[in-house]
Amino acid sequence: MANLLQEITRQELHRGLEDVVVDESGLSYIDGDAGRLVYRGYAIEDLASEGTFEETLYLLWHGELPDRDELASFTATLAEERAVPAGVAEMATELAAVDEDPMAALRTLVSMLSAYDREQDAETEDTDAMLRKGRRVAAKLPTVLATFDRARRGEEPVAPREDLGHGANFLYMLTGEEPTETAVETFDTALTLHADHGLNASTFTTLVIASTYADVYNAVTGGIAALSGPWHGGANQDVMHTLMELDESGQDPVAWVKDALEEGRRIPGWGHRVYHVKDPRAKILEARSEALAESTGERKWHEYTTAVERYLTEEVGLPDNDIAPNVDFYSGSVYYQLGIPIDLYTPIFAMSRVAGWLAHILEYVEENRLIRPRARYTGPESREWTPMSER
Amino acid sequence: MANLLQEITRQELHRGLEDVVVDESGLSYIDGDAGRLVYRGYAIEDLASEGTFEETLYLLWHGELPDRDELASFTATLAEERAVPAGVAEMATELAAVDEDPMAALRTLVSMLSAYDREQDAETEDTDAMLRKGRRVAAKLPTVLATFDRARRGEEPVAPREDLGHGANFLYMLTGEEPTETAVETFDTALTLHADHGLNASTFTTLVIASTYADVYNAVTGGIAALSGPWHGGANQDVMHTLMELDESGQDPVAWVKDALEEGRRIPGWGHRVYHVKDPRAKILEARSEALAESTGERKWHEYTTAVERYLTEEVGLPDNDIAPNVDFYSGSVYYQLGIPIDLYTPIFAMSRVAGWLAHILEYVEENRLIRPRARYTGPESREWTPMSER
Repeated sequence: MANLLQEITRQELHRGLEDVVVDESGLSYIDGDAGRLVYRGYAIEDLASEGTFEETLYLLWHGELPDRDELASFTATLAEERAVPAGVAEMATELAAVDEDPMAALRTLVSMLSAYDREQDAETEDTDAMLRKGRRVAAKLPTVLATFDRARRGEEPVAPREDLGHGANFLYMLTGEEPTETAVETFDTALTLHADHGLNASTFTTLVIASTYADVYNAVTGGIAALSGPWHGGANQDVMHTLMELDESGQDPVAWVKDALEEGRRIPGWGHRVYHVKDPRAKILEARSEALAESTGERKWHEYTTAVERYLTEEVGLPDNDIAPNVDFYSGSVYYQLGIPIDLYTPIFAMSRVAGWLAHILEYVEENRLIRPRARYTGPESREWTPMSER
Repeated sequence: MANLLQEITRQELHRGLEDVVVDESGLSYIDGDAGRLVYRGYAIEDLASEGTFEETLYLLWHGELPDRDELASFTATLAEERAVPAGVAEMATELAAVDEDPMAALRTLVSMLSAYDREQDAETEDTDAMLRKGRRVAAKLPTVLATFDRARRGEEPVAPREDLGHGANFLYMLTGEEPTETAVETFDTALTLHADHGLNASTFTTLVIASTYADVYNAVTGGIAALSGPWHGGANQDVMHTLMELDESGQDPVAWVKDALEEGRRIPGWGHRVYHVKDPRAKILEARSEALAESTGERKWHEYTTAVERYLTEEVGLPDNDIAPNVDFYSGSVYYQLGIPIDLYTPIFAMSRVAGWLAHILEYVEENRLIRPRARYTGPESREWTPMSER
């Protein structure tokens, strides 16, 4: 025992696994110094402005951009899978009635979906079956989320419409009204921008789960669980709460931020473990935020963010401190301008990131290895049992 | 980009993280060469023969064995928390009606429990709140499982009894009858033996999730998801199916195994990534299997396992090949002799391992670091966007 203990003790401790390479992946590359993000080599800017979220899904899951027929067939199959069983809708109503947190409700509802998926998974390594299940989860996730949100507002669910795109249909199911072109374009872009981002904590969670050959529902449920953490998916909600506080103060944005910094407060949506410059996704969403402000005529949220960014960049951020706005800094106010309830921002993140979760597990199981790291044992080596009478 | 790509490319790939030390832990130490397992320094043999599962829970969660008063208070609090809300019991009935897999049902039902836990978790680092939530999950998990199992047999749930221990009460809720002393002792031992085992895939999953400061329900739901994988928690079910096949063949056990090996079949419950000798837990369960055979007079399952073990040890296993029976090799037939349905073996594993899951996350968040490893990007560096018309 002593020898083994020493052997593990000598090894380096990788708390957080920050620089540990656990996988090879052709999915997304982040250049944190240049502020560049690509999916399978395509710049995120091109995908956001030229493609749809469905094209990004196809690209991540199948490796190449679809041609017209492939995209039509893929989009149609996704759209057909949107409806959810009555039992799941009832469960959404029950969870809404006891005031469950939306992210926790999403975790339970997605977990429940597996009960109605009759596909046999005899072959655990069957990546085609994984793709079919993943497509169903991605198609139904927005439906369970909209159903839950409407239930807590006392509204009946709105049935999905097969003639609308993935993002447009979600906005439609939330409100029962067809969204504007600007809203659809903006929301679709936001989904595209959040689809994948290397081995973040939720994607890595899905990998650990899938490495046991547990099925897609297990992996996605675990991914939602990890994404719900305040250190992972919750930051855009924090950004919006901060902007609302600024708004309510009636102060000039710069004056408000100065005060906040003096009080030692941290401004959410700033800084990233990987990016040392402005997050490329933040740049794209900044433009969408401006487009939304133009289209609605309500410019204040856009102006708050840009004013805060300008001040923080000069005061605490670039070029000296490598601190810059990340994607959450703009997605918060973009979703707010789209009229989406603040506590749905993280569930919407899940609605997009399920793309990357499935793509990564498909890639990993092709050359699967059970993920089982080590802990360095620091407890006592051997203790005598103490009978209850002597404790 | 090129420099960064090269930098990550140079780093070693740790697929499976096999020898990567990610954490320091005082919880369990496995000496795979000596066949020794300790929880906080106490030998598993002492805990199994002298203590109860509740003492092991207390030891893992609080660091020391409880004295008489501490144990009485801890046990009483656990027992009081066993009842589950009506909504959860209804959900168990719904999942049973659509024939959901028990492990998937457990994942959904445990996930749903969070909706009824009114404890605020304003302070994500509040380990006392985590302990309280963990205690509730551990107390209610057997209840939702028994409720589900009874529902699929068309039986009403049996209310938990506060005067029975954790394991005894579960057996009681399954059948509605008070279990024998031998059954209680055996089942309690099995729970104790499965309570913790280093950073296996499910425990590591709970760590990744908790590292985002997602709460205990998120972590445990993810742990169940990972444990459900055939490469993780499912092996004792495979062992039992194998023993039943042997039984149905009418052959002598040794003749049957010879044939199976000649056909190139793998015998489940043999070999372990960490143990190179007989798993100490298998030794303890072997004795319990014999005690059960004595008490019921039905000796064949015990005899099949020992005969198969003797033959395999000589033929393929020790001392030459370091292959020996692991814990699953005996737990399968032990649970079968206790009259437990085979597809509940993995959920029962979860009922025990929730002990280790909570203990590990409590330990990790004390010095939390978000778990976010790297993938080596192997995709194309940069591709020109191809418009749809040119694809």
